[in-house]
Amino acid sequence: MNDQRIYNFNAGPAALPLAVLEEIRDSFTDFKGSGMSITEVSHRSVWFDDVINDAAERVKRLLSLDNRYHVLFLQGGASLQFCMIPMNFLSDDKSADYVNTGTWSTKAIKEAQIQGKSVAVVASSEDENFSYIPKDISFHEDAVFTHITSNNTIKGTQWQTFPDTAGVPLVADMSSDIMSRPFDVDKFGMIYAGAQKNIGPAGVCLVVIREDMLALSPDHIPTMLNYNTFASKNSMFNTPPCFAIYTLQLVMKWLEETVGGLDRMAERNAEKAKRLYDFIDESSFYTGTAATDSRSLMNVTFRLPDENLEATFVKEALDQGMGGLKGHRSVGGCRASIYNATGMDAIEALVDFMKAFEKKMG
Amino acid sequence: MNDQRIYNFNAGPAALPLAVLEEIRDSFTDFKGSGMSITEVSHRSVWFDDVINDAAERVKRLLSLDNRYHVLFLQGGASLQFCMIPMNFLSDDKSADYVNTGTWSTKAIKEAQIQGKSVAVVASSEDENFSYIPKDISFHEDAVFTHITSNNTIKGTQWQTFPDTAGVPLVADMSSDIMSRPFDVDKFGMIYAGAQKNIGPAGVCLVVIREDMLALSPDHIPTMLNYNTFASKNSMFNTPPCFAIYTLQLVMKWLEETVGGLDRMAERNAEKAKRLYDFIDESSFYTGTAATDSRSLMNVTFRLPDENLEATFVKEALDQGMGGLKGHRSVGGCRASIYNATGMDAIEALVDFMKAFEKKMG
Repeated sequence: MNDQRIYNFNAGPAALPLAVLEEIRDSFTDFKGSGMSITEVSHRSVWFDDVINDAAERVKRLLSLDNRYHVLFLQGGASLQFCMIPMNFLSDDKSADYVNTGTWSTKAIKEAQIQGKSVAVVASSEDENFSYIPKDISFHEDAVFTHITSNNTIKGTQWQTFPDTAGVPLVADMSSDIMSRPFDVDKFGMIYAGAQKNIGPAGVCLVVIREDMLALSPDHIPTMLNYNTFASKNSMFNTPPCFAIYTLQLVMKWLEETVGGLDRMAERNAEKAKRLYDFIDESSFYTGTAATDSRSLMNVTFRLPDENLEATFVKEALDQGMGGLKGHRSVGGCRASIYNATGMDAIEALVDFMKAFEKKMG
Repeated sequence: MNDQRIYNFNAGPAALPLAVLEEIRDSFTDFKGSGMSITEVSHRSVWFDDVINDAAERVKRLLSLDNRYHVLFLQGGASLQFCMIPMNFLSDDKSADYVNTGTWSTKAIKEAQIQGKSVAVVASSEDENFSYIPKDISFHEDAVFTHITSNNTIKGTQWQTFPDTAGVPLVADMSSDIMSRPFDVDKFGMIYAGAQKNIGPAGVCLVVIREDMLALSPDHIPTMLNYNTFASKNSMFNTPPCFAIYTLQLVMKWLEETVGGLDRMAERNAEKAKRLYDFIDESSFYTGTAATDSRSLMNVTFRLPDENLEATFVKEALDQGMGGLKGHRSVGGCRASIYNATGMDAIEALVDFMKAFEKKMG
């Protein structure tokens, strides 16, 4: 690790590959011989065309997308998608299924209901504080789509396999585990992900959308809230968030060329999470909060014996160069977010610290 | 000028102060001793709190805003504002006045109409290809607001003084001249500006909104499209576009501490535009396209005797280190965008080039 840098366990915005940051830095006042910063080049220039097209092509390759899928770059985060999804896909005579697995699913459901849309919450893990992913769900065959949150950043749970909805397209918020593992994209009508956890900085939301979903959007909704606006203009109906897209492009390049693709990334992520969960399971001082079969490989949530110890733990970890270990303000406890850019070196350093802390305080 | 850098006359994204770019670069892998990049720090951290609060405070000081005004940072550009403004401010029994001065005004009007809102276009310069700003307009006293575009990037026109609407709040798209001059903010209920022309990179939209306007928003609109969501959460209901806000903060700091405020900035901008317009007026080879009393100090639009010469002009200028001089694809011709970050040295270089080109080709 660079002497100046910490091990960054933030939940998002989160760690980015150092090589990506260094490439941005080194070309920051003169992007590819343009004589301008990437923040100064026109979005209608060859320089930016190359960036956005390469970013989209890499996303297509990494996710094995066929030509039915469009790769779009929007603003407003996943939170804006919560309202755009029902606005675009759900006419007044139709209904959609939603599975409620935590804070973000709850918000997605709320934004459909605000618009007076018909929503069926077909399963929820609220009864046990969202500590597990529901199983054996009865989906509606006539639903327009089924919405899930693939990974729950706050509660530390993750869908291990995606549900069978008998042909109803899945619409998934993958903000916190997109590009962490390969999956069968064929089940999905749309995938969206705020970039700031696993694929870039805050300020761009990746949307992968299939043509049959695009065809559902009505004409009378605002232009900037219609997915077709972005699909028909290569995400450049208006000025896109150029810097965020550029950073995302470099992260995709790193995934393809340095890591070697999603299979290799998934192996790495599984190794990292196993090391940390195994240690927690062996310890009586630390307790994991998610049900074992629903554990997230991205966000490892755990408690210490009491809140004072947790506060001390977070503070001492930061003093030793490990940041972002405080749990989400809505739930407390501790959380280590170990996204793609977090290396095994960071995990080993954290486990060493946790051992020493337990020995001292336990 | 730095050897690697060009004179950047792009309309947006556009030139940024070199000192700002260098500060971003120099701290890019370790922001203020955090051990993280500004793209990696949590938006809930002290580091980012300082950034967003300082950015808002500087905007307040530069525009002399009193406590009735909130400074917000949104995503989606001015284009998303076009739909949010009528959605928030215009109930079904009310109407708003719009002045149509070009492409962006036209889009703003369209987004109100798509939603079925009542809009009165009280004046338009479409009869003369949007080459002037209308005068002596009859506004409606019972309008909820009057919408104007303060500067028209594509046509090169600008409101020299803002109209008297007899107390009806002005709502202004100031994307291309915000912070270029001081003005009496008291007339305005809301001001908005995509940052990528005069105050930052693409990816953040500055919104200045007064309390009486916030009070108009209905409860049933989507959370991310309600201005109160941003006003009540210091623009952090969800993850904001951290990097773009940080860059905007540094541009505001440059405006206050290096330039010396908006009075001084306005003097500089007036000198720059005068130098260029005076030269065009003296020449019979170059012809300005905007009416003299409506000329923009930000976007200087002009024609050459024919389109072939214009293409050659743009190409040869770029060869000599002057970029972005091509007019907007919808109107053709040439355009020099000379926002705050463009110095008099760039203007002198451009005038010298224009003289030499005329001598050679005229």
